[in-house]
Amino acid sequence: MLAVTILGNNSALPAFDRHPTAQVVTLDDQLFLVDCGEGTQMQMAKYRIRRSRINHIFISHLHGDHYFGLIGLITSMGLLGREHDMHLYGPAQLKELIDMQLRVADTTLPFALHFHPLQEGLIANEDKFRVFCFKVSHRIPCWGFRFEQKRAPRRILPEKAIDMGVPAAFFDKLKWGEDYTTKAGLLIKNESVTMAAPSPLSYAYSADTMYDENIIDKIKGVNLLYHETTYLKDLADRAIKRFHCTTEQAATIAGKAAVGRLIIGHFSSKYEVLSEFENEARAVFSNTDLALEGVTYRVLGS
Amino acid sequence: MLAVTILGNNSALPAFDRHPTAQVVTLDDQLFLVDCGEGTQMQMAKYRIRRSRINHIFISHLHGDHYFGLIGLITSMGLLGREHDMHLYGPAQLKELIDMQLRVADTTLPFALHFHPLQEGLIANEDKFRVFCFKVSHRIPCWGFRFEQKRAPRRILPEKAIDMGVPAAFFDKLKWGEDYTTKAGLLIKNESVTMAAPSPLSYAYSADTMYDENIIDKIKGVNLLYHETTYLKDLADRAIKRFHCTTEQAATIAGKAAVGRLIIGHFSSKYEVLSEFENEARAVFSNTDLALEGVTYRVLGS
Repeated sequence: MLAVTILGNNSALPAFDRHPTAQVVTLDDQLFLVDCGEGTQMQMAKYRIRRSRINHIFISHLHGDHYFGLIGLITSMGLLGREHDMHLYGPAQLKELIDMQLRVADTTLPFALHFHPLQEGLIANEDKFRVFCFKVSHRIPCWGFRFEQKRAPRRILPEKAIDMGVPAAFFDKLKWGEDYTTKAGLLIKNESVTMAAPSPLSYAYSADTMYDENIIDKIKGVNLLYHETTYLKDLADRAIKRFHCTTEQAATIAGKAAVGRLIIGHFSSKYEVLSEFENEARAVFSNTDLALEGVTYRVLGS
Repeated sequence: MLAVTILGNNSALPAFDRHPTAQVVTLDDQLFLVDCGEGTQMQMAKYRIRRSRINHIFISHLHGDHYFGLIGLITSMGLLGREHDMHLYGPAQLKELIDMQLRVADTTLPFALHFHPLQEGLIANEDKFRVFCFKVSHRIPCWGFRFEQKRAPRRILPEKAIDMGVPAAFFDKLKWGEDYTTKAGLLIKNESVTMAAPSPLSYAYSADTMYDENIIDKIKGVNLLYHETTYLKDLADRAIKRFHCTTEQAATIAGKAAVGRLIIGHFSSKYEVLSEFENEARAVFSNTDLALEGVTYRVLGS
């Protein structure tokens, strides 16, 4: 299962009750936080995201609207007594900043914070998922991320499994290919009570970037792509100057990369109404949705 | 005129839709921001505080719930094109932190940010007001502030002033003691159309502190005192361990310092309901109110 919950969809300035960038990516049983603008911990409370379930945080770049909420979130996790490890992926200078903020507060976190400086390529490689990092084109160094299931869970045939004596408590293991042995010692082969897994799911977050066809290879064929769309298409000149994208540009990238579905966000605070973003992007790539705060965008395995 | 608008009244963890510490102090035509927890710029938008009117920001100490919102606010002011000077008063290391955050974002502010490291004594001495800084007792270095009118505005006798030909547009100057000369060259002495000014107003903010009678001298006789009250009185032991105060302790300080009125805040997130804070503090110092977000506490000259 892959899902993205938007916590903030606005660009630099908070406006119209829209917040700076932050999103939670759910990949099976894992929750990732991707960028963390000011107020993210409050948005998490509002949308009932459990902080304790997040073990990996990814920060794309060091413009404040993408990370000013991080130190508050980390500090709160500490105050709440978190003990399990946290992995933080971000530009190298982020570690210096956090260390300094903890030092001046005389704060020692009660959990291990493992820092992974961003670099091109594979940056996380866990049991069930991996994450690739790639450069995008922004005014300061900025990275996108591609999250991939290593393999999707197999599909259980529940009636058959129950018939053959597999208890429901074992279903999660069935999904990941384990065989079951009954109390009587009978081996139930996984294949006899499950179907093959669908293709692994993938999600790409291309952060803040100007139009850049170099990223197409990096995000090729993902089920879901988030691409920034700071401006409508009539402001293409401003978009270039500020290293951002328009609706048309984001949708063009989605088409060229043959992604399954596109969500667009990072709207400029000059726009109060967002409907034209949807119209313009859909004219180029029909399977597009606005990234709206509090909304979860799901992709089910095929 | 003296007024304090509460933007955040909670201690370390945001909870129950209460926010970390921030307040706006209005002294005649000046707006001061005192502490700036995460989300302060959003709270300012919610309560319609005009960012552009704030020219002095005071940060009491470097625990995150008192300053994590500062860099976002400053950055937003820059993005909005602010050009007039800002004065920032805070612990010396705050400047290093801000400089670093601006540097990694490759951001140059379009306005001058004058940094004034905190020290005991007079830290701001302007035309109409002055600010004293004093040490309080917390786990890390922490300061309180005392804001004083240099003199209160004189009281205009409007009918008399109009009778004598002073236009309403000149009334603001009348308040500050200027004489008026009519077009015909007649001098209208200020004293003939105004009454003496009331006593100058003063406000003290004692930041995060454990019970400390050393501050009494520093806040003596202010019209309005904000004192932290993280815990109810039954948790006096915990208050000491964490360098905070209880209701009774805050109210005791208010009484010993003979202040006019007390507002209490910085409530622990262990309390959802706050009414008992009011009850306990009023039992010791009757003129006490809870610091509630969005509420403005005024003191009129006597």
